[in-house]
Amino acid sequence: MRQIGLVVEYQGSRYHGWQAQPQQVTVQSVLEEALMTILNHRVSVIASGRTDAGVHAVGQVVSFYTDSSLPLVVMKRGFNSHLPSDLRIIDVLEVASGFHPRKSATGKCYMYAFCSIVPPPVFWRPFVYPIPGRNFDFSRVRECLPFLEGTHDFTSFSAAGGTSLSTVRTINSIRIEDEGTGFSRLWLEGNGFLYNMVRIIAGELYQVGLGKKQPEEIKFMLEKPSRQFHRLTLPPQGLFLVKVFYPNFDPYQNLELVDQGWITPFWREKS
Amino acid sequence: MRQIGLVVEYQGSRYHGWQAQPQQVTVQSVLEEALMTILNHRVSVIASGRTDAGVHAVGQVVSFYTDSSLPLVVMKRGFNSHLPSDLRIIDVLEVASGFHPRKSATGKCYMYAFCSIVPPPVFWRPFVYPIPGRNFDFSRVRECLPFLEGTHDFTSFSAAGGTSLSTVRTINSIRIEDEGTGFSRLWLEGNGFLYNMVRIIAGELYQVGLGKKQPEEIKFMLEKPSRQFHRLTLPPQGLFLVKVFYPNFDPYQNLELVDQGWITPFWREKS
Repeated sequence: MRQIGLVVEYQGSRYHGWQAQPQQVTVQSVLEEALMTILNHRVSVIASGRTDAGVHAVGQVVSFYTDSSLPLVVMKRGFNSHLPSDLRIIDVLEVASGFHPRKSATGKCYMYAFCSIVPPPVFWRPFVYPIPGRNFDFSRVRECLPFLEGTHDFTSFSAAGGTSLSTVRTINSIRIEDEGTGFSRLWLEGNGFLYNMVRIIAGELYQVGLGKKQPEEIKFMLEKPSRQFHRLTLPPQGLFLVKVFYPNFDPYQNLELVDQGWITPFWREKS
Repeated sequence: MRQIGLVVEYQGSRYHGWQAQPQQVTVQSVLEEALMTILNHRVSVIASGRTDAGVHAVGQVVSFYTDSSLPLVVMKRGFNSHLPSDLRIIDVLEVASGFHPRKSATGKCYMYAFCSIVPPPVFWRPFVYPIPGRNFDFSRVRECLPFLEGTHDFTSFSAAGGTSLSTVRTINSIRIEDEGTGFSRLWLEGNGFLYNMVRIIAGELYQVGLGKKQPEEIKFMLEKPSRQFHRLTLPPQGLFLVKVFYPNFDPYQNLELVDQGWITPFWREKS
């Protein structure tokens, strides 16, 4: 029995999230269907996490078991030829037996994209959350970042419905890139994220940028963990899962991340 | 009676082209509907040209007549609030009486986008035509560009169905940008383009890049104008109308073109 890993990219707009559900188009079900067509047996895939409806992935990590002896390069070509245009397999790898895309993960990198052109260019619409061009203060947002960085109980920045027991997480790095060209990106790297945590952090920072909340309120929300605060959860379209970290395995070992100044970075084969 | 000009951007995937047709979603009909809602009278809009189904526009120029005394800035906000997310009005201007977006135009700029990553990143799919990563020779394509530049009878590079009497056109500038990041763009500027001319030029250059045609065949097709040659017309999704030129009027006078290295440049207000 071989265990195979995949690096997967998707434009989430059309999908009801990752997880297979009856009567719904999900990334998992479309992916499993394509794999089954090539491998000639039923396949169950496991992902690093279940992205919500509308969320995009630049480098989702997935694995599955198979008895097939097909070479990896043949699998990649075959799978991709059976996938729709909003779903792509970037790499296919042999992984160590026992590897688990979710349980083995020790960290993740997410990006949330904003646009300050009103209305946003049509080509960007499926990928950004609009912010008012004037009346938005990035320096106020930046004041909050040191509060969020580090190890905290992030209950105030999570939604009910998560499955993990602990609400303590570590954000290793959080930064805002303001390209000066009309779009801005919030980057977060951490050892794990609670349910809706990135979208709520993005929403609270958005409120601070608008002047509707004070940076000190973010600090207070970390000191007094509670879901009773009035929080704003930004919509999924601006959210991208970029990268998943594993201690003894690099799913992107054959790839490099190209980030050209447009909204979405992407992985491509090393040249 | 005021004559108003618009600079319009659209993601063409969902539209059956520019021109209003019964039972079809077209850019013209969706635009006229939004204008009518704000102006409270029926509106007929004229564009610089009728883009085909699936073609995108970065800076289409449009005009219409109205008795409304609404300020331009109010019109812009109002129109945009009634447009779907794949259609945007970038600017609204007062134009000289008698200005005609198509008849007054003295030139246009188009761009056709290619992607050499196989399969292309999902975020790029609606905007590019795929080329094989290896086995495609840009230097062969570049050999053809001097043949195409200048004044020629472009019959060999046009489809039947155009309305103009003359098939002679001047290409002032034609160039290939290869970003080295997996996408490449063909830019054309000329005094006018015959029906499907850009998509056929793109198709023939693609054939040359693949090695299926010789650069000399392009030269021959210009010397012997005919639609009897076997030509390849590339699909609309890679094609963008970027700019329209007028001798005494600059529709982009309040705008600047931002071109950041991603596929689609875009116009934004001058800062």
